[in-house]
Amino acid sequence: MTDIRLALTGFGNVGKGLAILLAENEETYRRAYGVRMLLTGVADRGGAITNPEGIDPAFLLRVKETTGTVAGYPGGVPGLAGTKFLEGARAQVLVEASSTNFEDAEPGWSYIRGAIDNGMDLVLASKGALVLHWADMMRSATARGVQVRFSATVGAPLPILEMAQRVLLGSTIEVIEGIVNATSNQILSSMSEGLSYEDGVRRAQEIGIAETDPTLDVDGWDAAAKAVIIANAILGADLRLSDVARTGIRGIVRRELEEARMSGAAIKSIARITNHEGVVRAEVRPDRRPLADPLGGLRNDEMGVVFHTDPLGVMTSTARSTAGGGIVTALTVLRDLFNLANDRGWGHVPA
Amino acid sequence: MTDIRLALTGFGNVGKGLAILLAENEETYRRAYGVRMLLTGVADRGGAITNPEGIDPAFLLRVKETTGTVAGYPGGVPGLAGTKFLEGARAQVLVEASSTNFEDAEPGWSYIRGAIDNGMDLVLASKGALVLHWADMMRSATARGVQVRFSATVGAPLPILEMAQRVLLGSTIEVIEGIVNATSNQILSSMSEGLSYEDGVRRAQEIGIAETDPTLDVDGWDAAAKAVIIANAILGADLRLSDVARTGIRGIVRRELEEARMSGAAIKSIARITNHEGVVRAEVRPDRRPLADPLGGLRNDEMGVVFHTDPLGVMTSTARSTAGGGIVTALTVLRDLFNLANDRGWGHVPA
Repeated sequence: MTDIRLALTGFGNVGKGLAILLAENEETYRRAYGVRMLLTGVADRGGAITNPEGIDPAFLLRVKETTGTVAGYPGGVPGLAGTKFLEGARAQVLVEASSTNFEDAEPGWSYIRGAIDNGMDLVLASKGALVLHWADMMRSATARGVQVRFSATVGAPLPILEMAQRVLLGSTIEVIEGIVNATSNQILSSMSEGLSYEDGVRRAQEIGIAETDPTLDVDGWDAAAKAVIIANAILGADLRLSDVARTGIRGIVRRELEEARMSGAAIKSIARITNHEGVVRAEVRPDRRPLADPLGGLRNDEMGVVFHTDPLGVMTSTARSTAGGGIVTALTVLRDLFNLANDRGWGHVPA
Repeated sequence: MTDIRLALTGFGNVGKGLAILLAENEETYRRAYGVRMLLTGVADRGGAITNPEGIDPAFLLRVKETTGTVAGYPGGVPGLAGTKFLEGARAQVLVEASSTNFEDAEPGWSYIRGAIDNGMDLVLASKGALVLHWADMMRSATARGVQVRFSATVGAPLPILEMAQRVLLGSTIEVIEGIVNATSNQILSSMSEGLSYEDGVRRAQEIGIAETDPTLDVDGWDAAAKAVIIANAILGADLRLSDVARTGIRGIVRRELEEARMSGAAIKSIARITNHEGVVRAEVRPDRRPLADPLGGLRNDEMGVVFHTDPLGVMTSTARSTAGGGIVTALTVLRDLFNLANDRGWGHVPA
C-alpha cells in the first residue's frame, strides 16, 4: 500500500469536497486503487495546518466550520503560507484549489512554482496559472520531471483532456465546441422556461451553482479561460484570455429564448475552438442550436463537449450530475490523482 | 524513434483499414507519437507474409486485391499460420483482427495463446477469445506480463473502456447502457422512416455496414458479446454469452416504430448492464426511448453509451463517423497501439 501525500491549497467548495470524499470513502479508494490518500498539509486564507502523519479530513471540516479557517486545527498556524507551508507538508502532490484569479494567478501561482521547485507533481483545480503562465509552467515542470494534471479546470467532470489524450489519437481535432459553464446554461434554461434574467441568476444561486457575483460566468470569462486551457493543452496553441472573442449571456432577452424554443431550438452559450491547419482560434458566444443537436439538448446545469475530428468523425461527451459542483470538481481532482498514481506506478488502476 | 513491430492476423475490413491508415499516415503518426508502426507479419486465410524489416502496407493492399491473399506478397507463404507465423514476424504486438467466431474463437485464440507465450502484447479487434476465454486469457497475460487492449471490440470508436479506466475513477458504475451495434440502429432508423425490415437490411448492406448474413447483428449476438466483454472487463464479472438475455430486432414491426416516432420517441436496440452491489446482469433488447434521451436521439449508424454512476452522475459518450466501419475500427486499434506504446514507454503521447 503506497501513501500519496497531498498538500491542499484552498479550502472552499472544491477543497471541502475533497475532504468530504476522503472522509467518507478513503477505505474504498484504498481497496480499489491500492493507494492511501493522505492530507499532510492544508492551507486557506487564514493560515495552514501541516502534519506529515496525516490530517483527519472529517475533523478538519468541523474545524473549518466552527473557526472559519483550517489553521484552527490542533497544531495549525494562522498566517502560515508559501514555501514554509510546502516544506511542512512534505507532500508528493500539490492539489491547488484556491480561488481562480485571472489578475495575477495568486496565490496559486506561487504555490505551483514552489511545488515544482520541490519536485512535487501538480493537480490543479484553479485556472489562473494555467491561463496566465501556461508555457512557463509547463517548461519548468518538464525540466523538473513534474507531472501536471488539470481535468478539473476544463468543465469538470467532462472527459475533455482524456478524450484528446487517450481516445482521439490518430485523428486531427478540427473543432472543439462545448457548453462548459454550467451556470450560464442553467440561467438560459430558466429563461427559456419564462424566468427573467435576474430571476434566472437568482435561481442558479439558490441551487448553489452561481456565485454571489456571477460576472465570471455570465460574461463568459470562465468559459473563455476553459477555452484557452483546452486550446493550449490539446491543440498546442499559445492563446491568452484576450485572444478569445467573448460575448456573455447578459444581452439575451427572454423573447429570443422563447422564440427559439417554439421552433425546436435553444440558445446556448458555446465555447468554440477551431484548428485550421495549426491556426487555433477560440470564441465564446450565444448560439442557436436545434434541440436535436448534442449541445442544443443540454438543459439546466448539464454540460457537454463535441470533438469534430478527421478521419474519425464526431465524438460527443455529456455530463449530468446530481452531486453538487464542489463534489463534482473534487471527484475530478480525485480522478487526476488516481491516474497520476497509476502512471507513476504508485498504485494500480484495475485493468 | 522506436519501432513498434506488429504481427497482424486477419486481413478483412479491419486489417485492410489498418494497412490503409499506415500507408497514408505513417509519417504523421511518427511525428505525433514518436513511434514507427512496422508491419512485420500479416496472415489471412490463404497464408502469410513475414518480414522483420517491414512489409509495405500499400503494396500489400494491392497484392491482396489481385491475388486474394497476403501470401501473394513477395516472400509470402501459402498456408503459413500459427506459431511458425508468429516466430517469423518477430513482433512486439499481435493485432488480432480475424473474423469473430463465437464457436471456438479460432483462429484468434491460437494466435493469442502463441503471442502470450512469446511475451507479445495484444491488441484485439476480434471478440471470440474475449467472450469465450476471458478469465483464462487475462490470467496467462498477467502471468507473462503481457498487456491486453481491446477498445475496438466494444462498439468502436466509443470510449467505453477509457471512460471506465481513466474518467469514472472514484465512482461506482451502477448501469451501463448503450447502442453498440451500428447495423441494428441503421435498420431501425430506416424502418422508422417507412422502410420494411427487409429493405432496411438491404439499405444497411448497400451502405456497407451490414454483412451478407446479418444474423449476428439483428439477432443481438454482436451486442450481447460486447455486453459480456464490457461487464467482465469493467465490472469484474464472469458472464458468458448465454448469460445475456437477448432479443433481436427481427420481431419489430414498422407500425411500432412509426407510432413511437409520432409520439416523439424511438425504438432502439439497447444493451444494458446493471451492477447491483456486485451482482452483474446483462441484456440486449428493443426499448422505447424519448428522442430527448441521449440514446433515443441516435440515428442511422450513430452509437452511444451512458454510464450511470454514484456519486458522479450520468456520463454519456456518442459517436457519429463518416469513415467506413473498417477504418473506424482500425483507428480504434491504432489508439490502443499508441496508448500501449505510451504506457510501455516506447514512444510518447503529447501531454
